[in-house]
Amino acid sequence: MLFSNFELNETEPIYIQIKNQISDMINKGLIPNESKLPSTRELSDIFKVSRNSVILAYEELKAEGYIYSISGKGTFASSKEVSSNGGWNIDWNNLENFYCKTANEMDIIKNEIEWRDDLISFKSISPNGELFNIEELKKSFLNRISLEGHKILNYGYAKGYKPLIDYLLNYMNSKGVDTSNKDILITNGFTEGLDLVISSFTNKGDHIICENPTHNTAIKIFRACGLNIVGVDIDKDGLNFDMLDEKLNQHSKSPDSKIKLAYITPSYHNPTGIVMSPEKRYQFYNLMKKHNIAIIEDGFNEELLYSSSHIFPICSLDNFSNGVIYIGSFSKILFPGMRIGWILADKALINKLESVKRCKNIHVSFLDQGILFDYLQNGGFDKYVKKIRKFYGDKFNFAYECIHKYIDSDYILGDGGLHIFLKLKNIDSRELLTKCYGDGVIFMPGDIFYLDDKGYDTVRLGFSRLSYEEIEKGIRIIGKNIDELS
Amino acid sequence: MLFSNFELNETEPIYIQIKNQISDMINKGLIPNESKLPSTRELSDIFKVSRNSVILAYEELKAEGYIYSISGKGTFASSKEVSSNGGWNIDWNNLENFYCKTANEMDIIKNEIEWRDDLISFKSISPNGELFNIEELKKSFLNRISLEGHKILNYGYAKGYKPLIDYLLNYMNSKGVDTSNKDILITNGFTEGLDLVISSFTNKGDHIICENPTHNTAIKIFRACGLNIVGVDIDKDGLNFDMLDEKLNQHSKSPDSKIKLAYITPSYHNPTGIVMSPEKRYQFYNLMKKHNIAIIEDGFNEELLYSSSHIFPICSLDNFSNGVIYIGSFSKILFPGMRIGWILADKALINKLESVKRCKNIHVSFLDQGILFDYLQNGGFDKYVKKIRKFYGDKFNFAYECIHKYIDSDYILGDGGLHIFLKLKNIDSRELLTKCYGDGVIFMPGDIFYLDDKGYDTVRLGFSRLSYEEIEKGIRIIGKNIDELS
Repeated sequence: MLFSNFELNETEPIYIQIKNQISDMINKGLIPNESKLPSTRELSDIFKVSRNSVILAYEELKAEGYIYSISGKGTFASSKEVSSNGGWNIDWNNLENFYCKTANEMDIIKNEIEWRDDLISFKSISPNGELFNIEELKKSFLNRISLEGHKILNYGYAKGYKPLIDYLLNYMNSKGVDTSNKDILITNGFTEGLDLVISSFTNKGDHIICENPTHNTAIKIFRACGLNIVGVDIDKDGLNFDMLDEKLNQHSKSPDSKIKLAYITPSYHNPTGIVMSPEKRYQFYNLMKKHNIAIIEDGFNEELLYSSSHIFPICSLDNFSNGVIYIGSFSKILFPGMRIGWILADKALINKLESVKRCKNIHVSFLDQGILFDYLQNGGFDKYVKKIRKFYGDKFNFAYECIHKYIDSDYILGDGGLHIFLKLKNIDSRELLTKCYGDGVIFMPGDIFYLDDKGYDTVRLGFSRLSYEEIEKGIRIIGKNIDELS
Repeated sequence: MLFSNFELNETEPIYIQIKNQISDMINKGLIPNESKLPSTRELSDIFKVSRNSVILAYEELKAEGYIYSISGKGTFASSKEVSSNGGWNIDWNNLENFYCKTANEMDIIKNEIEWRDDLISFKSISPNGELFNIEELKKSFLNRISLEGHKILNYGYAKGYKPLIDYLLNYMNSKGVDTSNKDILITNGFTEGLDLVISSFTNKGDHIICENPTHNTAIKIFRACGLNIVGVDIDKDGLNFDMLDEKLNQHSKSPDSKIKLAYITPSYHNPTGIVMSPEKRYQFYNLMKKHNIAIIEDGFNEELLYSSSHIFPICSLDNFSNGVIYIGSFSKILFPGMRIGWILADKALINKLESVKRCKNIHVSFLDQGILFDYLQNGGFDKYVKKIRKFYGDKFNFAYECIHKYIDSDYILGDGGLHIFLKLKNIDSRELLTKCYGDGVIFMPGDIFYLDDKGYDTVRLGFSRLSYEEIEKGIRIIGKNIDELS
């Protein structure tokens, strides 16, 4: 097509015309640098001229440095600066908006010490991949592909893969949730669930209440969306309800400071590891209801609760109402690489979020949803959860003992799960990190979870991917460095 | 935990105390309706009382309607309205923001006629799943899982799976793009790519230029982000460059109306099916460069170009600059269910988008990226593209002939690909759709692709998933109804 529009005149030698046209196109950038040209045979067909004319034209172009040949590979445009087409430099820093700027500034992956495999790293709270039952997953893949490969490999529905949605509705039901007026939207993990809710139901300047400290990703999303974050302290006894009451009353006085949403992680709270008691869940729910503040409940690692049958998610208190949006995810403990989470909420609300999901990225991989459904349905998850509850439970107890033994802390928090939280005695955790890094040990400084500077002397220790030996050695090293800083 | 805080006194019968505590919790909503209670044996362990006391308490609670048992399943809290905890109704319509409202209003899936399998539907332009090589895909899955299953099933990187990124950089290189100062971000398909760019680099009220008509999803994203859309007509000769010039000059006069971005689909433009010539690509690029308007190039179905080696993407003209953001996707033709696309742009720009991607949903499924990489690397895609170019090319020619034969149109557009675009002679395509629906045939009315009401008499016909018989029958029926409306 590029060459087929040539018109050859009768006055000049054909090879000169071809040469001039091609050099002109190269000058204009129409034939990009290093791109492959048609072969002499192809070009003679396109121009309907003898192959010799094309060979001659190519020889001239080579001589002038426009093109070059590699034997067996073909002929290419040379890589010289194109005169009419030099630098165009857009100032993207100037074009980026508030969301982009904030997401970059708060990107801890870019700003924290990178993992290296010679470090003992307590930074991660991702699951230990060695526990994944990959044989079961293979079976689920092969089964689902043979049953409906053509279907799950083609476009699906924004809301999600129906069998998975039905499975999860039942699953939520088993946690005590009446799902008769609820529905589920499948999301790319918890993070997308939260981002969808925030980017659908807030405007810049809106107020949101949350625990302080809280999940760093949540703070990042709230800040990127320009929200005013109202923090309520968590101390060693859990959420400070007096402070919560006070903030609620204070903000309810003026319509401008009215709080719109509340974000809460009742189980294995990140970073403190605290599990909220049923009584406090009830108290929290009713307070929010009284102030008409919708709740976003983060179902974080709820699956790890030993006695899960007797602790209900907050959304189970909201059965006949629409005040709670529950965001769940298995991917914090199972196959995080697949990125599957869900939002459970009132039907009309899910209907709204479905269109937002479609607008942003159409749907979550139907292949992954199909595989996960098959795996869940065949009981793979139940077996897995039993195994990891014991595995991580034992590890938690061991890490807890090590901390008790080696670390001089103000207090230690955590009820299980994949991490433990420490409040040190007035020791700067960044300074500690620098020292520990010198000894080959890293951890997550607690300040990234705080809305203010209260967390400067706190530390989150994730132990899920470390061996017992590494846990003990790492904690000993941290303890030693704390003693040196004291 | 819920039950472990009970304190039993010495004065009342134990079964009465248990009964009262449980009924109290049910009244307060602490034990949600329909949730399962511990077995009598479990509860007697928790309370450290005789099992008989618990059995008695449960009998009393059953008698009063608080709980019920299903033999073999257990005991459950009854589903009666909870007094202290009745309706809480949040007005989500009032809380939704502009993005959410717009995404819902413009959701064509919710507003258009639904597909039923007894309809001949020309609505879809998704690929024919029967052409997918599922055996090759299985091999790629099993291969990748056995090589690095633990890795691709755990958390990955926001930018994407490194081997896939490298493969795609090479692939773009083979299209004539110098990738030395470019990088790639893997996205959940084209749609997420566009949403990421728009939600990172625009603010409400910014101006964007695009073809009119254009991809409906793009219009939806622009509107949801509150952009001012400046349309440039496409007519039977393609993009109207005079109009483009005029709009550019008009908008460059005042800083308030300055155009920030341009969105363009040079190959198999959706909906018109036009392929832009290399000369026009060059002209467009230089115009945008002159006005310093960054280009978002939609690589839509470029892979279907028969003579693809001689038509370069616009981004190949931008090798040493940073003015073009190219968004590519195989998922329009290959495994759309997997949702994998990519953004190719200047390195510094991709670095920014990487943090935005991480903020929004961490990363695209590493399992899917691993499988796709393996499939591509083993030559599966090359074989597939050869097959479908012929398959869809033949279908296109057949559909084109049928339209020519049966439909009285103003003009027919399309250079191949998976759809054909018709301009009728002043016939309302919505009215036509209603009539055709009665005859079991549906199509996509062109108006959804227009920024104004110019498209009222246009129609997009997608034929990828229809048989030759269905194509001919469907087009005959559409033609008949057009004749009746004329």
